[in-house]
Amino acid sequence: MDFRRFAFALLLLLSFATSSLSERLIRMSTEDRGASVYSGVPRSRKNNDLLCESWKFSVETNDAGVWYTIPEKCVKFVNEYMNGERYRLDSEVIADFALEYAKTVNITGDGKDAWIFDVDETLLSNLPWYAAHGFGSEVFDEDSFNEWVDLSQAPALPASLRFYTELQELGFKIFLLTGRAESQRESSDKNLQYSGFTNYERLILRSTSDVGKTATLYKSEKRQQLIDEGYRIHGSSGDQWSDLLGFAIGTRSFKLPNPMYYIS
Amino acid sequence: MDFRRFAFALLLLLSFATSSLSERLIRMSTEDRGASVYSGVPRSRKNNDLLCESWKFSVETNDAGVWYTIPEKCVKFVNEYMNGERYRLDSEVIADFALEYAKTVNITGDGKDAWIFDVDETLLSNLPWYAAHGFGSEVFDEDSFNEWVDLSQAPALPASLRFYTELQELGFKIFLLTGRAESQRESSDKNLQYSGFTNYERLILRSTSDVGKTATLYKSEKRQQLIDEGYRIHGSSGDQWSDLLGFAIGTRSFKLPNPMYYIS
Repeated sequence: MDFRRFAFALLLLLSFATSSLSERLIRMSTEDRGASVYSGVPRSRKNNDLLCESWKFSVETNDAGVWYTIPEKCVKFVNEYMNGERYRLDSEVIADFALEYAKTVNITGDGKDAWIFDVDETLLSNLPWYAAHGFGSEVFDEDSFNEWVDLSQAPALPASLRFYTELQELGFKIFLLTGRAESQRESSDKNLQYSGFTNYERLILRSTSDVGKTATLYKSEKRQQLIDEGYRIHGSSGDQWSDLLGFAIGTRSFKLPNPMYYIS
Repeated sequence: MDFRRFAFALLLLLSFATSSLSERLIRMSTEDRGASVYSGVPRSRKNNDLLCESWKFSVETNDAGVWYTIPEKCVKFVNEYMNGERYRLDSEVIADFALEYAKTVNITGDGKDAWIFDVDETLLSNLPWYAAHGFGSEVFDEDSFNEWVDLSQAPALPASLRFYTELQELGFKIFLLTGRAESQRESSDKNLQYSGFTNYERLILRSTSDVGKTATLYKSEKRQQLIDEGYRIHGSSGDQWSDLLGFAIGTRSFKLPNPMYYIS
């Protein structure tokens, strides 16, 4: 009798242990990096949020590598993150750290002290478009996105606008380095001006000769050109690691949050 | 009367707006990077957790730069993160992503396919020591920490032990590259063996000639030596960005969580 009770308790314990979160993770498929971690059916909303939280960690630290769509199970999580207080607050804290560093930079007065910003999800927010397209859970529709860009209606990210303005007051020259195409210069410039990003030194877009290059290579080459022109790149801000890695990188890099999409 | 009511409502609204989280962040001091963001008194536990969550984002993405102690207001948050489900689950998901990548590596059979691990908070967990020292809120006490190291009792991080074992089955040569001193070789090796990290190729520790170098430089130099010996560094795992940045870096890097301390 005592043995039966013991065996039953052991069985209960084992069944609990094997349905734990970590066990479900081990059972992930290897087909789709982004979504595969979430192949297990979560037992509760809390467990699902914990998994999405861990997925987000891997995405934001670049541990996840290349990925194409967000896990279907994390659509609600990403929606709440982006539209709730967290995204805004994360961006504010990053801007605070970046500004704290920027204030320590010795501005020489020769006009060569530079800061580089990416555009999408760094200065301008495409959240209205992504909210209408599953927060990154749908395969990227380039035509539809380009139509959105042509509207020039992307709002400013408030923390970035504050930081951008303060950088200019400190005397930095601001360069915008974006993966958008040269053909989108007019709509991009119009959107930037309209959203408050005025008086930048240069807006650098992908020309036809840059087509086919990874963002990491294209952006590294453009940074190298700035260095060759004598600019000192004190800092870079971007929502993608391809804004910040490669060569000719800034003295400090500031990774902004973006759990919606990945660009190599 | 109507105007008075309106003015009162406006005042209420303004006082609410100026005590918002972002406003408090703007008021941060610039004296202490790590803790300064939290100088405002949060109105609630939820707000405090949100701030600590954002601080953690900046720390894990390296946006925070050099920092010395965790914010006093985040001690409870870090305690709950480290001892709760999140730390373990973050580590499991990272191990899953790393293993998925490792399986795609072509192992040539010449014994030169390498993976590099850091030791502390990457293979071994010093959480017992940090829990007794404020989870990183106290100034680092090197003597006390070295006494802990000499005990050789740091437990394995379960996700890392699983990944480590699977890497060996795939045919990787494993190198351990740590900031621990050469004088700690015996206690470190004993701890590693005891915790299940057996059959590694080499344990690389700081020799007297490495004293005074940043971890980034010391670890880059040691990786370069491995490359010069003909090893291909397919991946690196570490809880510090100084494990992963610099030169001679691995093809892929895996940043493990550590909101308790920072090493340059």
